Amino acid sequence: MPLVSVVMGSKSDTEALKPTLEVLDKLGISYEVNVISAHRNPERVRQYGLEAQNQGIEVIIAAAGGAAHLPGVLASWTTLPVIGVPLATSELTGIDALLSIVQMPAGIPVATVAVGKAGAKNAAYLAAEILGLKHDDIRKAYQEYRKDLQGDN
Amino acid sequence: MPLVSVVMGSKSDTEALKPTLEVLDKLGISYEVNVISAHRNPERVRQYGLEAQNQGIEVIIAAAGGAAHLPGVLASWTTLPVIGVPLATSELTGIDALLSIVQMPAGIPVATVAVGKAGAKNAAYLAAEILGLKHDDIRKAYQEYRKDLQGDN
Amino acid sequence: MPLVSVVMGSKSDTEALKPTLEVLDKLGISYEVNVISAHRNPERVRQYGLEAQNQGIEVIIAAAGGAAHLPGVLASWTTLPVIGVPLATSELTGIDALLSIVQMPAGIPVATVAVGKAGAKNAAYLAAEILGLKHDDIRKAYQEYRKDLQGDN
Amino acid sequence: MPLVSVVMGSKSDTEALKPTLEVLDKLGISYEVNVISAHRNPERVRQYGLEAQNQGIEVIIAAAGGAAHLPGVLASWTTLPVIGVPLATSELTGIDALLSIVQMPAGIPVATVAVGKAGAKNAAYLAAEILGLKHDDIRKAYQEYRKDLQGDN
Amino acid sequence: MPLVSVVMGSKSDTEALKPTLEVLDKLGISYEVNVISAHRNPERVRQYGLEAQNQGIEVIIAAAGGAAHLPGVLASWTTLPVIGVPLATSELTGIDALLSIVQMPAGIPVATVAVGKAGAKNAAYLAAEILGLKHDDIRKAYQEYRKDLQGDN
Amino acid sequence: MPLVSVVMGSKSDTEALKPTLEVLDKLGISYEVNVISAHRNPERVRQYGLEAQNQGIEVIIAAAGGAAHLPGVLASWTTLPVIGVPLATSELTGIDALLSIVQMPAGIPVATVAVGKAGAKNAAYLAAEILGLKHDDIRKAYQEYRKDLQGDN
Amino acid sequence: MPLVSVVMGSKSDTEALKPTLEVLDKLGISYEVNVISAHRNPERVRQYGLEAQNQGIEVIIAAAGGAAHLPGVLASWTTLPVIGVPLATSELTGIDALLSIVQMPAGIPVATVAVGKAGAKNAAYLAAEILGLKHDDIRKAYQEYRKDLQGDN
Amino acid sequence: MPLVSVVMGSKSDTEALKPTLEVLDKLGISYEVNVISAHRNPERVRQYGLEAQNQGIEVIIAAAGGAAHLPGVLASWTTLPVIGVPLATSELTGIDALLSIVQMPAGIPVATVAVGKAGAKNAAYLAAEILGLKHDDIRKAYQEYRKDLQGDN
Repeated sequence: MPLVSVVMGSKSDTEALKPTLEVLDKLGISYEVNVISAHRNPERVRQYGLEAQNQGIEVIIAAAGGAAHLPGVLASWTTLPVIGVPLATSELTGIDALLSIVQMPAGIPVATVAVGKAGAKNAAYLAAEILGLKHDDIRKAYQEYRKDLQGDN
Repeated sequence: MPLVSVVMGSKSDTEALKPTLEVLDKLGISYEVNVISAHRNPERVRQYGLEAQNQGIEVIIAAAGGAAHLPGVLASWTTLPVIGVPLATSELTGIDALLSIVQMPAGIPVATVAVGKAGAKNAAYLAAEILGLKHDDIRKAYQEYRKDLQGDN
Repeated sequence: MPLVSVVMGSKSDTEALKPTLEVLDKLGISYEVNVISAHRNPERVRQYGLEAQNQGIEVIIAAAGGAAHLPGVLASWTTLPVIGVPLATSELTGIDALLSIVQMPAGIPVATVAVGKAGAKNAAYLAAEILGLKHDDIRKAYQEYRKDLQGDN
Repeated sequence: MPLVSVVMGSKSDTEALKPTLEVLDKLGISYEVNVISAHRNPERVRQYGLEAQNQGIEVIIAAAGGAAHLPGVLASWTTLPVIGVPLATSELTGIDALLSIVQMPAGIPVATVAVGKAGAKNAAYLAAEILGLKHDDIRKAYQEYRKDLQGDN
Repeated sequence: MPLVSVVMGSKSDTEALKPTLEVLDKLGISYEVNVISAHRNPERVRQYGLEAQNQGIEVIIAAAGGAAHLPGVLASWTTLPVIGVPLATSELTGIDALLSIVQMPAGIPVATVAVGKAGAKNAAYLAAEILGLKHDDIRKAYQEYRKDLQGDN
Repeated sequence: MPLVSVVMGSKSDTEALKPTLEVLDKLGISYEVNVISAHRNPERVRQYGLEAQNQGIEVIIAAAGGAAHLPGVLASWTTLPVIGVPLATSELTGIDALLSIVQMPAGIPVATVAVGKAGAKNAAYLAAEILGLKHDDIRKAYQEYRKDLQGDN
Repeated sequence: MPLVSVVMGSKSDTEALKPTLEVLDKLGISYEVNVISAHRNPERVRQYGLEAQNQGIEVIIAAAGGAAHLPGVLASWTTLPVIGVPLATSELTGIDALLSIVQMPAGIPVATVAVGKAGAKNAAYLAAEILGLKHDDIRKAYQEYRKDLQGDN
Repeated sequence: MPLVSVVMGSKSDTEALKPTLEVLDKLGISYEVNVISAHRNPERVRQYGLEAQNQGIEVIIAAAGGAAHLPGVLASWTTLPVIGVPLATSELTGIDALLSIVQMPAGIPVATVAVGKAGAKNAAYLAAEILGLKHDDIRKAYQEYRKDLQGDN
């Protein structure tokens, strides 16, 4: 039963989210990957959002480009923390996705990370920090990683 | 039975959409006004989107600021044309709302108009142009308006 | 007698509008393609705009980059709905075209879609939504497409 | 017979163009003021553009906000130099008008000046520089002004 | 022993963070408030970051404007989740703070929320989502809030 | 004795200004080309600016990227019309050069054209419009060009 | 004989530079204030730049808004360090001044600080850091200030 | 004992800082190069910042991309002048790094130079100007360079 759900709006985002999966693997965090478009299949997003918590999911990572509604729409269907990764998939180089994800209205937050590759990695690290509050092994794995990081420039 | 549905995400957007209603009134287009938040009440947005066409609605005008998902989320639940009005309600003066509304992914368009007051009016004029293809009285009212406009600088 | 007119400002925009034509073809919507520069040949734009409605055109799709006046200028000569596609043809990656198209003054709306390829497709889908209000076959074709979309991620 | 035509899209721009008229007065340059909307009355813009040169006009100053097509549309109807003044009339503080005016396609230039008040003044000074090539009194008046400027900080 | 630490860079940010404290109060989440400048007193930021976890803090909320280093600097000293709130305190209306907070390098994430008031509230709601994974009462309080939200537009 | 002076800040801008020279050639306008850096050799800019008018120059075209002071500095040393071409030579894709050139203070205008290639061409066309007020052959050549343009899309 | 020269382009910038003078006073750094426009009086800027070093000036602080050439032009006439303060005096809220000052070409640097009030103060603090390398009393005064700062949040 | 310390956040920035080292070499300024991440190893940044002055360092040059905290964090630990070089390492082409570096709060300035290569060079030239106030050989070398520059376009 995975703790993290990684959701992307299109199969074409797979490459962009590879760093996320690599970090989750490295930290030993269980996860599942889903391809669900916020707009093309809103019913499936809704079902997914409504049931995620009951499935044992504790953190959702959602990536999207352009209007980038996926993280916010998922957040509207669940009370789990949703981490949003803005992708630079449009001509506007990701500033559109960043603003669409981060500027959520009061009540329905999305935890936004950097545009592109740094953000794809940090979504997983942020998930580790959140899960680490409750799961000792994840906290230790992340703290170990941060110690290693100090020697790595 | 109204032809146009004007949807806003919050009662506080009422003032911003007053120009829309005034133009619809002037052109004799029937409408209803709904306050439904894309994020705070996604279930109601879904219900509304799924039923709008059956209720006789032909055009949806949706206004939102910040992440401004309302027009896009409505568009994902209906095949009616959705007109999006970006509101300058955040510190970022509306550029966030504009990008969040206009940069929709392929398949689910939102017909975006200008940020703020000009856009609020033009949402109604655009609805008139669309409805005018089918409804003679609306086409005539809009063409009359455009003729009057030529003398008005 | 085509329902949709696709207008571009320069032959060099042909590639950028190919997705528009493909979607129109797929949905069985009749169209014509015109190359008319808003600035280099304003007289022809005027003639085209003034006569489009009499020719049976119901929706105009106009694409342009840079100052991108074509959609707005066409809109000033007709009361048909005009859909504007911002192209990323200048060094400023399309933000100039987006603002030039979307920020139209009250009275003369342009229905703006996303910058570039997503917008090129959505211009055709938006045309389908608009025409679908009146033409049953187009509405059904578009609704069919949207159903198929749900299985396609 | 005025040498300069100052054109604005709306009576509400009168205040914004007052500095232009004051500078023209100070330098003794004859001018006329016209209110013609690029979009609401394209026929009048066309007539004006086509006849300006025959009326003895040598330089056109056109100011607009938002999509700000007026200078570019005038430029498409005339071969006289057109000076464009971007106005900060929309929520986007003038960056939209600046890009819409300056990013004209090859062949139809608009001589663009600063957004707002500085630009309103400089439109008149630029007209003086242009007219000064041919009209000795204007060149002298402008050179006099520039000399005075050196003592004025 | 508070679960949440709210850190601001200057006493002058107190007003901007009032919505954060109100939401934490409403949801019954214990918190402390600290004023520590990332730049003026880096030693105190370091001490605070190094000890926060041992003090029982589980989530840090940090707000800053301009170069807005506070959230990122705190994140570099702790492995607790850090939520960053960009404040619109400079002439650049908050876009500087947003980019400075969200664009963190791989390894040291900051969970970024909206610029200004919406973000100030959402920092607290995001903290509730994170803490709710472990603390049943906070999860319930937040879920209750979200239910109430559905009736509130 | 050339009528137009084309000034660039660095030999590396030669390619960017080739379209300017081609248009000047096509229209039969005499010109000279100078490479003078606004910052590296301010004394030479000053000399050039002070003497240009006496040398018979009537219009100066100056291109620059980044901080792009060259057009404005030349304008401060002469009362001839200066046309500024913003080049996209920095990582910021030309928006820096555009703002640095167009936002001149009251009294010292620079006639700004589009960023990059379109602007490089339009600098020459604008020079033709300006010179055409006084030089019949240039006016005719430009009007001829504009007529040809109508058939060229 | 002052060590620092504070230069502004217009008397109207006096208020914006008051924080600079207050910080210089507080740190006991001698200074003079000059009002010289980069564009309106380039000869005086040149004279000032050429003679500053001989007058004993060691650091120049120059503030400007809009195209904001003053710091860069001064830098082209001197080999003293020039600190540039971007002012938010145009409709574009200072982003124009920032880019015009910071994006200087290789060889002629301007040490740029924040837009507006924070930058006005930091120009003086940066001058103190620079002068402190050579002048013990200034170094001590600045270090004292920084120590006090630690208790001031 | 080097006078200048060049600090980068990651080994991958080596290429971007090569122009800095070349200019320092050319001017005969002694320097050391350090790779220290502001976020991954804050303790080492602190140690470095606290001890730099005692090691004889007089100017610090720090380069960073994205959130780009390195220059500001170093500035918070030292009273030496810190020169910040924004790198275009993220999808946002360096505007994020520029704002994160330049918008420092009052009291802790960072002397910011241009984004990318021009900035990398100018960081070294600015260091030369600063050091030249105290070190005659550096001042002379820089003045020599500036003289040579006048013949080099």
